[in-house]
Amino acid sequence: MIANTLQNLREQSPLVHCITNYVTVNDCANMLLACGASPVMADDLREVEDIQAIASALVINIGTLNERTIPSMFKAAQKANELQHPVVLDPVGAGASTLRTDTALQLLKEVRFSVIRGNISEIKTLALGSGSTQGVDAAQADKVCAENLEATVEFAKAFAARTDAVIAITGAIDIVADAQRAFCIYNGDAGMSKITGTGCQLTALIAAFVAANPKAKLEATAAAVCAMGLCGEIAKTRLSEQAGNASYRHYIIDAMCHVQATDIEKGARYEMH
Amino acid sequence: MIANTLQNLREQSPLVHCITNYVTVNDCANMLLACGASPVMADDLREVEDIQAIASALVINIGTLNERTIPSMFKAAQKANELQHPVVLDPVGAGASTLRTDTALQLLKEVRFSVIRGNISEIKTLALGSGSTQGVDAAQADKVCAENLEATVEFAKAFAARTDAVIAITGAIDIVADAQRAFCIYNGDAGMSKITGTGCQLTALIAAFVAANPKAKLEATAAAVCAMGLCGEIAKTRLSEQAGNASYRHYIIDAMCHVQATDIEKGARYEMH
Amino acid sequence: MIANTLQNLREQSPLVHCITNYVTVNDCANMLLACGASPVMADDLREVEDIQAIASALVINIGTLNERTIPSMFKAAQKANELQHPVVLDPVGAGASTLRTDTALQLLKEVRFSVIRGNISEIKTLALGSGSTQGVDAAQADKVCAENLEATVEFAKAFAARTDAVIAITGAIDIVADAQRAFCIYNGDAGMSKITGTGCQLTALIAAFVAANPKAKLEATAAAVCAMGLCGEIAKTRLSEQAGNASYRHYIIDAMCHVQATDIEKGARYEMH
Repeated sequence: MIANTLQNLREQSPLVHCITNYVTVNDCANMLLACGASPVMADDLREVEDIQAIASALVINIGTLNERTIPSMFKAAQKANELQHPVVLDPVGAGASTLRTDTALQLLKEVRFSVIRGNISEIKTLALGSGSTQGVDAAQADKVCAENLEATVEFAKAFAARTDAVIAITGAIDIVADAQRAFCIYNGDAGMSKITGTGCQLTALIAAFVAANPKAKLEATAAAVCAMGLCGEIAKTRLSEQAGNASYRHYIIDAMCHVQATDIEKGARYEMH
Repeated sequence: MIANTLQNLREQSPLVHCITNYVTVNDCANMLLACGASPVMADDLREVEDIQAIASALVINIGTLNERTIPSMFKAAQKANELQHPVVLDPVGAGASTLRTDTALQLLKEVRFSVIRGNISEIKTLALGSGSTQGVDAAQADKVCAENLEATVEFAKAFAARTDAVIAITGAIDIVADAQRAFCIYNGDAGMSKITGTGCQLTALIAAFVAANPKAKLEATAAAVCAMGLCGEIAKTRLSEQAGNASYRHYIIDAMCHVQATDIEKGARYEMH
Repeated sequence: MIANTLQNLREQSPLVHCITNYVTVNDCANMLLACGASPVMADDLREVEDIQAIASALVINIGTLNERTIPSMFKAAQKANELQHPVVLDPVGAGASTLRTDTALQLLKEVRFSVIRGNISEIKTLALGSGSTQGVDAAQADKVCAENLEATVEFAKAFAARTDAVIAITGAIDIVADAQRAFCIYNGDAGMSKITGTGCQLTALIAAFVAANPKAKLEATAAAVCAMGLCGEIAKTRLSEQAGNASYRHYIIDAMCHVQATDIEKGARYEMH
């Protein structure tokens, strides 16, 4: 059911316009190519509308937001909304600085997002208006586990209802929710959190999946999250004893080149809540 | 004949100043080191003249051009022209936004380029003043194949005559032309287009080759294109079944560390037109 | 003696705030994760104080300094000084442009640095007020070797005394000095200089080590330099015949994931001067 979203992505090869941070931008580009999409990175105020017009989706990742790129984010998003293109928000580090929190909240106010993906601390910051994100990682106290899973699912559904966006909270357990339904996803490996940018890559991936499946954004987002987790699992089997986060990073992107709808069908581990 | 340009490069180890996009800048730096050159990335208006003065060549890549870096491109290029340093243009995405097209056209007007390297859509945009680049990839309708090869060679030669630059149009078949002669090059592998930045890396490589061979810029450019394609071919033989674009990317850079003039002599596949 | 600094780092997992160049920023982030720290990259003037407040250390790397990020460097450093957080300077390319030299000298005047790490040409530029750095590499005439080692150690100690910072001069032989003592370190491999960003990564690593060992900044810096060199040695043993600088780069980061205090104890090769 969610697996066919990957086939659509491979057939349509959507162009995904990213306004993203300079830390992990190369990985995002290669991940988009690996999944079958095409990346275009463009963040100057004078060109983001043109670029969005030829693209099929927009990623806004605030990882290294700055005075020059913030206005570009708003302008690109407005254009994407006009054109009914999906817009995916990655509120990197929301809660860690006033600038990040305020920018993310203002984006939420002015932009219609299809999907918002972050760690639990970032998403709580967006939903509650303030937070305590530790740099770009989730605060320990916030972490999603079996004990608080139901409460977090309800929180995600409520935030989805309020924003009309699919909410993807990623961590040891991933939650992908709209107002009614939630996927709780168990794919992936803890080692992925020791690689910079796996979250950013996933956000880009979600944009590609949703661009190719505009009428099934919940399923498309869940498929992207499962696919990323699966790639983490597949890549892990390639790691030699001496390998570390650098090799792991590349093997995950490599794995996305090969993953098929049938792999998602067989390998996706989730339950509906 | 073209292979000795690599020896000159290795002996001279030119310092190549790049004003380039933040997506693939790391790959460009490592590729320059791999071929035997040295990279220096500097894009602030107040320092580009100083840096160009100690460098041997300039790369202008408009992949993530912006209001801050565009004036730096012009200033650095002017300095390079004054000092008779080769300047290589990579008009990434020209045709995809007005800003890119206008900037590239203005650069063409004000700067004397030694080489211009792009995909067919980007080069057509420069030559014709408008275009239909799909993001950063060539439009399907533009693609160079056996049927339109002669016409494209003539187009390249004419554009070379007009600009006095070597024109390098890269794709499944690569064309490297000055006003009189054209190399049609068949090295490389289709998988290279699934790696972000192979074009950017090639542009940086061309700058290194031309810096070390200023009186043979056509041969130097052709050698760089053959070398990059050969590295793609060599790297492909290292790919395991599970490898994808991330591994391929590194193996291509790895291969450039080892490629010798004799490899180019034996492995270069081209015909003159 | 120096090896336990790594254990402290692993136990404390400090958050390291980097204002660094966009060429090697991804490698710095992955290296910080590999050693057990966490990275956060943030360079907008309006957020650097917030981010520094939740971090444990600051890296200022001027590799792609510009009009937007220079004021952020000063503001972040002032905040770090207020909060008694260690600040580590990497004066990339000081001596290669007036902007770099002037910015580095001004930083030296206004900021209390815990450690300054650079190649010999960069450090000479800071100490003498002008220099002849070749791009981002040391000038041949400056290189540290057996013949000038004692003189360079004295120079490093004097500069350390003047700045109250640990001075780390890295090259074929690394010198890590405070006013009284100097480690002359022989770990590492010449191939590391053919990878872009090994210096930047080391600077980030030093910040992590010093953040976790604030009362032993000389030993912490020496340990970081030894650890990086050791990783270079370990990574080298993994290189196949076809491997080059791209594979080497990843293997070094991989190696940092596994290196233990006992490895440093056994593998560190240095003498005190």
